[in-house]
Amino acid sequence: MDMLWNGWGDPAKAAPLPETVTGLLHDLLGVEPRSTPALGLEDIRPPAPTAAPAALRALAAAVGEEHVRTDTASRVRHTRGKSTPDLLRLRAGDVTDVPQAVVLPAGHDEVLAVLRACAAHGLAVVPFGGGTSVVGGLAPQRSAFVSLDLRRMNRLLDLDPLSRTAVLQPGLRAPEAEALLAAEGFTLGHFPQSFEWATIGGFAAARSSGQASAGYGRFDEMVLALTLATPEGTLTTGRAPRSAAGPDLRQLILGSEGAFGVITSVTVRIRPLPEVRVHEGWRFASFLEGAAALRRLAQDGPRPTVLRLSDETETLVGLAQPDAIGADAAQGGAGCLAIAGYEGTAEDTAHRRERAATVLAGCGGTPAGTAPGERWAHGRYSAPYLRDALLDAGAFAETLETAAFWSRIPGLYTAVRTALTDTLTRAGTPPLVMCHISHVYENGASLYFTVVSAQGEDPVAHWTPAKHAANEAVLAAGGTISHHHGVGTDHRDWYVREAGPLGVSALRAVKRRLDPEGLLNPGVLLPTD
Amino acid sequence: MDMLWNGWGDPAKAAPLPETVTGLLHDLLGVEPRSTPALGLEDIRPPAPTAAPAALRALAAAVGEEHVRTDTASRVRHTRGKSTPDLLRLRAGDVTDVPQAVVLPAGHDEVLAVLRACAAHGLAVVPFGGGTSVVGGLAPQRSAFVSLDLRRMNRLLDLDPLSRTAVLQPGLRAPEAEALLAAEGFTLGHFPQSFEWATIGGFAAARSSGQASAGYGRFDEMVLALTLATPEGTLTTGRAPRSAAGPDLRQLILGSEGAFGVITSVTVRIRPLPEVRVHEGWRFASFLEGAAALRRLAQDGPRPTVLRLSDETETLVGLAQPDAIGADAAQGGAGCLAIAGYEGTAEDTAHRRERAATVLAGCGGTPAGTAPGERWAHGRYSAPYLRDALLDAGAFAETLETAAFWSRIPGLYTAVRTALTDTLTRAGTPPLVMCHISHVYENGASLYFTVVSAQGEDPVAHWTPAKHAANEAVLAAGGTISHHHGVGTDHRDWYVREAGPLGVSALRAVKRRLDPEGLLNPGVLLPTD
Repeated sequence: MDMLWNGWGDPAKAAPLPETVTGLLHDLLGVEPRSTPALGLEDIRPPAPTAAPAALRALAAAVGEEHVRTDTASRVRHTRGKSTPDLLRLRAGDVTDVPQAVVLPAGHDEVLAVLRACAAHGLAVVPFGGGTSVVGGLAPQRSAFVSLDLRRMNRLLDLDPLSRTAVLQPGLRAPEAEALLAAEGFTLGHFPQSFEWATIGGFAAARSSGQASAGYGRFDEMVLALTLATPEGTLTTGRAPRSAAGPDLRQLILGSEGAFGVITSVTVRIRPLPEVRVHEGWRFASFLEGAAALRRLAQDGPRPTVLRLSDETETLVGLAQPDAIGADAAQGGAGCLAIAGYEGTAEDTAHRRERAATVLAGCGGTPAGTAPGERWAHGRYSAPYLRDALLDAGAFAETLETAAFWSRIPGLYTAVRTALTDTLTRAGTPPLVMCHISHVYENGASLYFTVVSAQGEDPVAHWTPAKHAANEAVLAAGGTISHHHGVGTDHRDWYVREAGPLGVSALRAVKRRLDPEGLLNPGVLLPTD
Repeated sequence: MDMLWNGWGDPAKAAPLPETVTGLLHDLLGVEPRSTPALGLEDIRPPAPTAAPAALRALAAAVGEEHVRTDTASRVRHTRGKSTPDLLRLRAGDVTDVPQAVVLPAGHDEVLAVLRACAAHGLAVVPFGGGTSVVGGLAPQRSAFVSLDLRRMNRLLDLDPLSRTAVLQPGLRAPEAEALLAAEGFTLGHFPQSFEWATIGGFAAARSSGQASAGYGRFDEMVLALTLATPEGTLTTGRAPRSAAGPDLRQLILGSEGAFGVITSVTVRIRPLPEVRVHEGWRFASFLEGAAALRRLAQDGPRPTVLRLSDETETLVGLAQPDAIGADAAQGGAGCLAIAGYEGTAEDTAHRRERAATVLAGCGGTPAGTAPGERWAHGRYSAPYLRDALLDAGAFAETLETAAFWSRIPGLYTAVRTALTDTLTRAGTPPLVMCHISHVYENGASLYFTVVSAQGEDPVAHWTPAKHAANEAVLAAGGTISHHHGVGTDHRDWYVREAGPLGVSALRAVKRRLDPEGLLNPGVLLPTD
């Protein structure tokens, strides 16, 4: 099944906004119903491919004719990713970032052959997994490019139950990977909000982090070995869980966002399927009180498997538990809702849960039972569907995220909130800015912001200054430009400042060695020359 | 205090071999007393420095005249590291790898100034921390070089108790760093065998792993931010515990062994000082039975802070508890000794210890009480002193180590043991080969081998084929060429094969960008052009 071309996910799961939310949008933010509906796919007219017939023949020779697609639907479905500006542009019929063709290789050698064909014909290459980038990771700065869709590379290549490792192909979607592993009694434990659509290769290329990261770790911590197909050949790395044999090349490929090569296999750490999964809610008087409680668990344990905390606004709106959106708004003064989830054996889960409860209560938390936790777990993948409903209703909704060391979290929270609120208010569309912590570490945490406002006349132009102001605030307050969405093209200019001129030039030296003609995702992650 | 120039550690701690060991060496291995004692430092005559007076003046301008040392003792004390071949060469008066001068900068800017002075005068630069490399990491392939001794950069620059981070200068020796942190109630938890002498910068540059890695992690897992001084300027990295902003540049600097730049500050994760430290022994019938028990704890917990297992030979000799060397030899059939150590709060330690005991007993282990554990803890830094005593007694002793995924551990163990035994036996000096596991992960473990034999006529020439055979066995059996000693010059040729041509050329591209004239540790880690 294909994802909704100009929105998120399975079209059958789309749902209109609850009335409480529609009322809130109108009363609080002045959101008015949209006058013009989004265009249909049949209305979209991308420019005809300009790639030479010889180029298409070379691609067909690499992967087979039936695996080179130049039809409008295929090309439009591979245009950009799923950021709100991406969707707004598609809804308006703007397909300026359309690929020349969509190419579907069956394996590593076909990927190498595609790279050779593209080099020979001057075509850029954009690796495409689930197409879920929200940072412009699929919008290269080159007009003639092919989209390299990895969906045919969707096999479990090997599973070593003793070492608890599995070798996965990059085009496996997360649910497919989980199903294959579950058949052997294992799980990866990687459940990001994009779970239903995102792929193993994309997780690795963009350093994804899942909602159960407190227990299972980030995706980059799960990766033990990688194979990378580059225009200069094959790079493989990872012979042991840890090594002192030089710099860790795995960590050079992770986060390279398709700019150094195409990830064609990923060896991951797997864990036994949990016996028990339970999620519960906790209430805190304030975001900072709750954050201190999360910090205590992250530093001294016991570590829940899922640990998150919504700020006052997100709690009030109900975004902390998507199935309950708007329900709390009438109550007022709801404080902050935290969710703690536990997965594992029955004994270990019970023990951790009991001890964590003592810590959370000692930090001022009030237990709210399992109902809010299970509501969160049930609705955990629904936020992107909600965004489509908000866009349909004439609202603007977007997210951004960062991370920092604990001592910087309060200042970072205030700085980003203020930047977003001030910029959008000055533009005449005062926003609702919500925030949660969803990934905790001994030394710091992530902050994830959701912004909802009226759309304004030109919603993309309206949003851009607010996003830029947020990026500036992130850097000034000591945060990283992205904790788990990645760099893409949207964060590139700030990433360059974060990495510094010498860091960026070291990475460009690597890119020039692996991709001397600059075919791979030009302008994504690193500026073009 | 300076380390023994041609051996290990504090000369006052040197101790002769127990008689049981001397007897064993003679009876089992045919070790005969040495006929010629090692030379004294006063007998060593290194070649006079050839560096131009202008070069020495430029260095003096960078760091102050009193911090540029050209006296024989300083130069000889900075000649090579502490591998057994290094020591044997020094004992024989071979100082071919002597530096032109020893330069002691006071801070980051002085390091940059030294790099500029060296670039201007064509001198190579070898960063020098504790001088404890056992892989030829201080023996560059360039005759005219200066040793950049970082001992004056020995301050704690910052400590953030909320985020539990500390900023350390690279020249801090581990005990100094621990003392500074302990004054604030914290510990780094990094206790490698080189603890007494090795430095923070060296730990980072060589991806050190400490004996408490099961609980505190490896050094590369403790590093949150780094500053690197390079001939092309300063590179800083690390704004958050984790980030999705591109490849992880920290992991490109960690393990770079001075070939990309000089690490001038390291931000590390710190933890509260433990309330309790306890070590206990367990007996297993065989190495593989014990390894399966360690795997169980590493995969399913609870995780001790220290977890190690000696094979039958190491247990029999008593190397598992250095204070008891030779004591078990008479008993025979001692099985394999494991050490499990626990550090933390009293409650957490008791709980983990109790649950781990159930797991270990369930895997066939027999509790041996705390006596073997405390003997191990007491003697944990004594093995390198023991080596000097062995060399004095006419024996040859050296170590090497690797790591692999769990399913490869049995084959790797057998392959390396066989390679060492066969090569040395064919050469007429049948060895005693001992092994332990001292670092465990969910997906694999390290193997650390100790070899003792008679020295043979030319002990370095005698050892080289055995070491090469072991390296070949490591690669063939799926291990990494080093789990925690590093690459240096000794492992370089095998590292190049492990990293692969494209991986190596990517790293060389980084080196060329940061060190275009190839001043930094030429031939260490990466081959020279």
